[in-house]
Amino acid sequence: MIGETLSEYRHLSVALLGSGSVGSQVARLLLEEQQELASRVGAKLELIGIAVRDTAAKRDVELPQELYTTDAAELIKKADIVVELMGGIEPAKSLILEALEQGADVITANKALIAAHGPELHAAARRVGAQLSYEAAVAGAIPILRPLQESLAGDNVKRVMGIVNGSTNYILDRMDRFGDTPEAAMQVASDLGYLEADPTLDVEGYDAASKAGILARIAFHTDLPEGAVYREGITAITADDVATAKAANQVIKLLAVVEQATGADGAAGVSARVTPVLISREHPLAAVHGGKNAIFVEAEAAGELMFYGAGAGGVETASAVLGDLVSAARRHVAGGPGLTTPSYADLRVLPISEAETAYQIILNAVDQPGVLAAIARVFADNQVSVAAIHQSLPEELSGLAKLVITTAEAREEALQTTVAELRALDVVSEIVSILRVLHA
Amino acid sequence: MIGETLSEYRHLSVALLGSGSVGSQVARLLLEEQQELASRVGAKLELIGIAVRDTAAKRDVELPQELYTTDAAELIKKADIVVELMGGIEPAKSLILEALEQGADVITANKALIAAHGPELHAAARRVGAQLSYEAAVAGAIPILRPLQESLAGDNVKRVMGIVNGSTNYILDRMDRFGDTPEAAMQVASDLGYLEADPTLDVEGYDAASKAGILARIAFHTDLPEGAVYREGITAITADDVATAKAANQVIKLLAVVEQATGADGAAGVSARVTPVLISREHPLAAVHGGKNAIFVEAEAAGELMFYGAGAGGVETASAVLGDLVSAARRHVAGGPGLTTPSYADLRVLPISEAETAYQIILNAVDQPGVLAAIARVFADNQVSVAAIHQSLPEELSGLAKLVITTAEAREEALQTTVAELRALDVVSEIVSILRVLHA
Repeated sequence: MIGETLSEYRHLSVALLGSGSVGSQVARLLLEEQQELASRVGAKLELIGIAVRDTAAKRDVELPQELYTTDAAELIKKADIVVELMGGIEPAKSLILEALEQGADVITANKALIAAHGPELHAAARRVGAQLSYEAAVAGAIPILRPLQESLAGDNVKRVMGIVNGSTNYILDRMDRFGDTPEAAMQVASDLGYLEADPTLDVEGYDAASKAGILARIAFHTDLPEGAVYREGITAITADDVATAKAANQVIKLLAVVEQATGADGAAGVSARVTPVLISREHPLAAVHGGKNAIFVEAEAAGELMFYGAGAGGVETASAVLGDLVSAARRHVAGGPGLTTPSYADLRVLPISEAETAYQIILNAVDQPGVLAAIARVFADNQVSVAAIHQSLPEELSGLAKLVITTAEAREEALQTTVAELRALDVVSEIVSILRVLHA
Repeated sequence: MIGETLSEYRHLSVALLGSGSVGSQVARLLLEEQQELASRVGAKLELIGIAVRDTAAKRDVELPQELYTTDAAELIKKADIVVELMGGIEPAKSLILEALEQGADVITANKALIAAHGPELHAAARRVGAQLSYEAAVAGAIPILRPLQESLAGDNVKRVMGIVNGSTNYILDRMDRFGDTPEAAMQVASDLGYLEADPTLDVEGYDAASKAGILARIAFHTDLPEGAVYREGITAITADDVATAKAANQVIKLLAVVEQATGADGAAGVSARVTPVLISREHPLAAVHGGKNAIFVEAEAAGELMFYGAGAGGVETASAVLGDLVSAARRHVAGGPGLTTPSYADLRVLPISEAETAYQIILNAVDQPGVLAAIARVFADNQVSVAAIHQSLPEELSGLAKLVITTAEAREEALQTTVAELRALDVVSEIVSILRVLHA
C-alpha cells in the first residue's frame, strides 16, 4: 500500500512536553501511525522523548518507558519540532521560547499561554522563521484557526461567534432540555468530569475568554492585550431564565463573540466578549448540544459558515495537534520559513461600554395607563430603539404587568443607563432579567 | 493601519481565465482589497488580465476594460498564478497544463475537470513543484479540502458525507417543508436560477458525483478513475417518500458518501456513491435547509465534525478561490515547492455491489398468518439482518398490510437479491420503495 520503507525517509525529531490526556494520545498516534504519517509528510516523525514530572507515574496509555525524561530543557535541544502539552504559563513559556530560538517549530494547545503571551511568542517565531501553531487551543478537534488563517485569507471576516466551552454548554443544555436547576446540572457535569478542577475557569468564562482572544487575533490581525476580552460567565443564569427563553423558542448559550465594530469615536475597532446570549432555536448554534463546540463565522464574501465538532477530549484534541505537527513537518521537508499570522491591522479593542448588541429586558411594572409610555420614553431618551414589547398579566404577579422588551442593536453604555433609569421609575417594581440577544 | 505601501512589496502576477459569476467577483475583490491582501501575503497581487470569449460583452461587475483579452494562452505566459474559472474540460485543461509546466501555481473551481483529470493535473504540478488547488470546487465557500488535507493530516478519516449540491437540497427541502410535488419544487428552483442550464447535472447527481470523487481523493489518498462514483439522483423520489419519511421523523437528503470499506475480498477499499439517503431529524445534516451545503466528517481521533455554509454563489465561491490564491502567493513569497496531495494509498474502489449500508424497504403484502415469516426468511437466506419491522393496515390498501422494514448494514448485492426474491413472493403485492438509511 505504501511504496517506501521508513528507513528511506529523512527523520524529523519530535519532542513532547507533557503526557496527560492529550499528550499521551499524541504519543500513541505518533508511534502507531508512523508509516502512514511518513507517507503524508515525506519524512519520518521520530518521537525522541516525552518530558514529564515523574517518569515512574502510572499512566493510562502504555508507552515505551525509555521515552520519559524529567529534563525538558535537554530534550528540546535535539528536536526539530516541539509539542507543548504540559499547560500552565511556566515552565511552558520558557521552554517554548527556548525551542523557537533554536529554530524548532512549536505546536501547543495551551490557550491560556497563547492568550496571555501570544505576541511575544509570535515575535520569537518570526525572528527565526519557525512556525508556531495552536489549532488545538481553540475548540479542540474542530479545524477553525487554519480555515480562518488560510481558507478565508482572501476574505473579510466580520464576526466570529463560538460555543467554545463544552462544560458550560453541557450545563446550559441540561437546563434547557431537562429543566435542571443550575446546581443540579453543574453536579452532573462535575460527576462526568466535564469541569476543570477549578470550575471557575469554565463557569465564569475565563476559558472561553482565552479562546476569544485567540480568535480575534487570527480573524482581525490584531493582538489583544491580556484582559481585553469582556467576560461574563453563566453563574447568573437561572432556571427561570432558561424556561422563559424556551417558552419563546429561544435558548441561552455562552458565546464568545469577536467582531469588527465601530467605536464611539467613529473609528474601526474590535469588540471581544464572552457572555450568555439568547439565540433563536432556528439558528444553527442553537442545535449545538451537550459538550459539543461550534464556531459560526460571518465573512463578507463567504457569508455564514459553521464549524462543528468535539471541543475537548484527549484523543480528539490530539487530532488537531497532529494536524499542526504534519503541517510543520511538511514545511521542514519543503523548506522556507514558517507561516506566520501578522497582526498588522492593530485595531483598537473597544471597551464593553462601546460594544453594540441587541438586548432583551424583562421587567415587572404597575399595570396602569401611561406606564408603557413612560417606559418607552426612557429608551427613546437614551437613543435605544425598541424592536418589540410583549406585555402580559401573569396571575402570580397579582396585578403587575410583565414586560418583555427587545431592543435593536444598541451600545452597552446606553443600555446600562437605560436600565438604571428604568429601575428608578416608580412604576417599575423589578428588573427581572437583562440578556444579550443574537441579532439575526 | 498598514505599515507598508504597495510599491514596497514585490509583485506577483495573477491571470484570470473566465469572467462569469465567480470570476468577476474574484477580479473585483483582487482590485478592491489590494492593500489588505498585500498585508496578508507580503506581496502585491497584480491582476494582469482576464481571458474571456468576447471582450465587448456586457457584464454585471464593472472592471477596467483593458484587463480583458481573448488570448488566454498569451496571458498565462506572464503569470505567477493562474486562476481558471472558465469551466468545462477544454480549453481549461490544456491551459492549466500549460500554466503548470511554466511553473505557475494554478487555482481552479472546475470540479468536473478535477474529477475527470485530477491525476494528470496533479502529476504535472508535482513535476515542477507548482501548487494546484481547488477548494472552491467542492461546497463553494465552505473550507473542506484544506481542513481534510491539513487539519486532519494526522488523523485517519473514516467517512465523509456531504450535502454538496444546493439545487437538489433546495428541491428536497421544499418537498419536506411545504409538501411540494417534485415538479413544483423543481419549477421554483428553476425560477430562482438554482438549476444548471442542463438540470440533469444536478438532479441526476453528476455534480455531486464529481465532488464525491474529489473528496475521496483528498480523504483517502486514492485516485478515483472516472465513473468510479456510483450515482443515483433525486428523480425517483416521490412526494410520498418524503411524506412517509417526515411522518417517521426522518428526512431525505441527496448525500455524497465516501468511506473506507472492506471489499468482498476482505481487503481495504473505498466506497464512493451519491444517492438519496433517509436521515433521522436528530442528525446535524438533517438541519441543512434550502440551498446550503454541509460536509460531515468522521475521523478516528477527531470524532465527528461538520462544516456548513454556502455551497454556491459568485461572491461566496470567490472567497474560496481567494483563500487558495493567498495560500499560493504566500508560498511564492516563502519559497519551497507547492503542497501536493500524494495518492499513495491507492485503495481499490469498490463497486456499488460491495458497498454496505442500511436500507429501508416499504412493501405491501397479503395480511395473513405466515406472511411475516416468509418475508423474514428471504432476508435471513440472504444474510441481511433485519433491524426493525413495522406493520400497519392502512385503510386505502383494503386488506393488504404495509410493512416498513429497516435492515442493519448489508452489502448492496445481498440487498438487491433480497428485493428480487421479495418481489417474486406471491404474498408480496408491491415493493413501494427502497431507500438507503444513514446508520447512526
